[in-house]
Amino acid sequence: MLGNFTYSNPTKLYFGKDALDSLSAELENYGKNVMLVYGGGSIKKNGIYQKVVKILKACGKNIVEDGGVMPNPTAEKLYEGAEIARTHNVDLILAVGGGSVCDYSKAVSVSAYCKEDPWDKYFIRFEDVSCDIIPVGCVLTMVGTGSEMNGGSVITNHKQKLKIGHVFGDNVFPKFSILNPEFTYTLPKYQMTAGIYDIMSHILEQYFSGTDDNTSDYIAEGLLRSLIVSARAAVKNPEDYEARSNIMWTATWALNTLIAKGKTTDWEVHMLGQAVGAYTDATHGMTLSAVSMPYYRHIMPYGLEKFARYAVNVWNVNPDGKTKKEVAEEGLIAMESWMKEIGLVMNISDLGATEDMLEGIASATFINEGGYKILDKNEVTEILKESL
Amino acid sequence: MLGNFTYSNPTKLYFGKDALDSLSAELENYGKNVMLVYGGGSIKKNGIYQKVVKILKACGKNIVEDGGVMPNPTAEKLYEGAEIARTHNVDLILAVGGGSVCDYSKAVSVSAYCKEDPWDKYFIRFEDVSCDIIPVGCVLTMVGTGSEMNGGSVITNHKQKLKIGHVFGDNVFPKFSILNPEFTYTLPKYQMTAGIYDIMSHILEQYFSGTDDNTSDYIAEGLLRSLIVSARAAVKNPEDYEARSNIMWTATWALNTLIAKGKTTDWEVHMLGQAVGAYTDATHGMTLSAVSMPYYRHIMPYGLEKFARYAVNVWNVNPDGKTKKEVAEEGLIAMESWMKEIGLVMNISDLGATEDMLEGIASATFINEGGYKILDKNEVTEILKESL
Repeated sequence: MLGNFTYSNPTKLYFGKDALDSLSAELENYGKNVMLVYGGGSIKKNGIYQKVVKILKACGKNIVEDGGVMPNPTAEKLYEGAEIARTHNVDLILAVGGGSVCDYSKAVSVSAYCKEDPWDKYFIRFEDVSCDIIPVGCVLTMVGTGSEMNGGSVITNHKQKLKIGHVFGDNVFPKFSILNPEFTYTLPKYQMTAGIYDIMSHILEQYFSGTDDNTSDYIAEGLLRSLIVSARAAVKNPEDYEARSNIMWTATWALNTLIAKGKTTDWEVHMLGQAVGAYTDATHGMTLSAVSMPYYRHIMPYGLEKFARYAVNVWNVNPDGKTKKEVAEEGLIAMESWMKEIGLVMNISDLGATEDMLEGIASATFINEGGYKILDKNEVTEILKESL
Repeated sequence: MLGNFTYSNPTKLYFGKDALDSLSAELENYGKNVMLVYGGGSIKKNGIYQKVVKILKACGKNIVEDGGVMPNPTAEKLYEGAEIARTHNVDLILAVGGGSVCDYSKAVSVSAYCKEDPWDKYFIRFEDVSCDIIPVGCVLTMVGTGSEMNGGSVITNHKQKLKIGHVFGDNVFPKFSILNPEFTYTLPKYQMTAGIYDIMSHILEQYFSGTDDNTSDYIAEGLLRSLIVSARAAVKNPEDYEARSNIMWTATWALNTLIAKGKTTDWEVHMLGQAVGAYTDATHGMTLSAVSMPYYRHIMPYGLEKFARYAVNVWNVNPDGKTKKEVAEEGLIAMESWMKEIGLVMNISDLGATEDMLEGIASATFINEGGYKILDKNEVTEILKESL
């Protein structure tokens, strides 16, 4: 724990089967006009929409609806949402959905009263917020992004062919988030598994960086161990409440800034995966799983100590009588075997990537500098080839 | 992760060698009258007092001093402090010290405008706060209690022979805390080591309870592993910044509510240790260490699964070919050996307890019901005998 840092996370979380019961009391803290933001309408099928609307009405709120938030929310949609929020004098934006709906709601919250073009200001110029911010609350129905307790917001601009994330400060974090693991039961298994690997990858991106002895890495190891156990149980029985609740809680703490405190981070797997996603439109978590093993095998020699530690502390590899390299390799084999066991996609060809795309994907891959090896272009291409 | 729960922790933390530089900006959020609370004056010797006063003056604050907070802050002192805060229209209470100074400052913050007797209201009747609360900020100079990021406040009433803790809600948590590991360097080694075991005990009290698979326990294991490594390094070299910073950060997360979320907890070691403390006036952390091994050996058969898990996940015990009991015992042996290595007190006789006190200490020991075995009076006496 060497660096200077600030930790602040004001989001209040209500967790458990009865979590939605807390919404009424929270609503008392805000004015009458509530903007209800949601995605493609699955919340109408599983009844969560009806439950939320009933509570809003019982609390005497005026509801302004903004549905149809797409998996990758667009700048065009953001302009519309900001206009709706402003013209209806919205007092609270209530996001009901997964990471995209939360991300979008945060972007709207800082755009409604923004005097400039919010895409340019926040996502091109990465400027701080200088206007009034509409408070955001979340009712989470999908797990993985951690958007329920952080300032992250990713917006896509199709005209400019850009997908950019801004990490806002704690004044933009959701004021409250309602986390009921049962609300995630109706998610298809493929999406659940992809979400699990998204969580895993969030933790590993922060873990595989730096050489100091750092409490954050020990917390990360704890989260990883919990996730590994719960993922196995959830894949066997998606309605295993214990497993789904552990996964939900792990997801929140995997990306709410805690495990990055005082240390450097990598995020290269996300760079590779996002480039694959741009070419294949595949599910985010699966793009990460499909590039992970070739990436980690490639950088392992440069971060041997940490990979050996990972093998022992996370995968229970017995190091006795083995070289560091053997221990590290055994850890990656255990990881690979777990990934296959829970049904993750292990090759980008299974996501629709073809050999002729590799050059383009490699060019689209941003090179980060926090990992154990700063990749060059040839290495990126090599890793992508291995991932095919 | 089975229970319903709420998580909210609004304390903003500034961590690192330059953390005090953030004080000026924080002070802008509060009015002119700052009550400066500290203990016996060690902060004047190590220069922290002078640094803080310089910043307060540079920010144009009126300083109202309230020094002399004792290691176990008293109800009498609380009455005085509340009077000072009220008559001086204090806008911010700035606690500069360890857990006692923070605890006391929180108690003053909810007592200044309390219409009733605050001791009776908060510490006898455990009522919620119903008056205005003066915001509290902390500059931490001792590590262990976690008071810098929670609502805990322990006050002692000598007339009534009572020492009682109230856990206030998040409206009483410090608004901000400044954590510079270097500020803890001047603490004598005995106090540092006692603080380390206080942290260890906070984690174990929350860990050794319950049988479900729970993310909180995995996070606890991570914190324990970090603490074990850092404690060894800090004892060798108290100015090892990496170690001291990891210990400081672990202390905060050991008792800021996170690792108790969704689970039951025990706290029986604290009940035993506090009773020993009442008879010997020994340092809190050492009373905990002196009773821990007999207590854990006594309850181990009732929580065998968890103790075996503890041995493997925290102490790297290799379970191959061993019974659960053998694994669990090996874990406790490893723990005991670490405790001796870092210089913890292992017997209550070394703290001044004598055989003729045992009856009284046993009677003063409150019996909790969250652990693996609800003790009866004979068991308490037995454990204390073993601790002699």
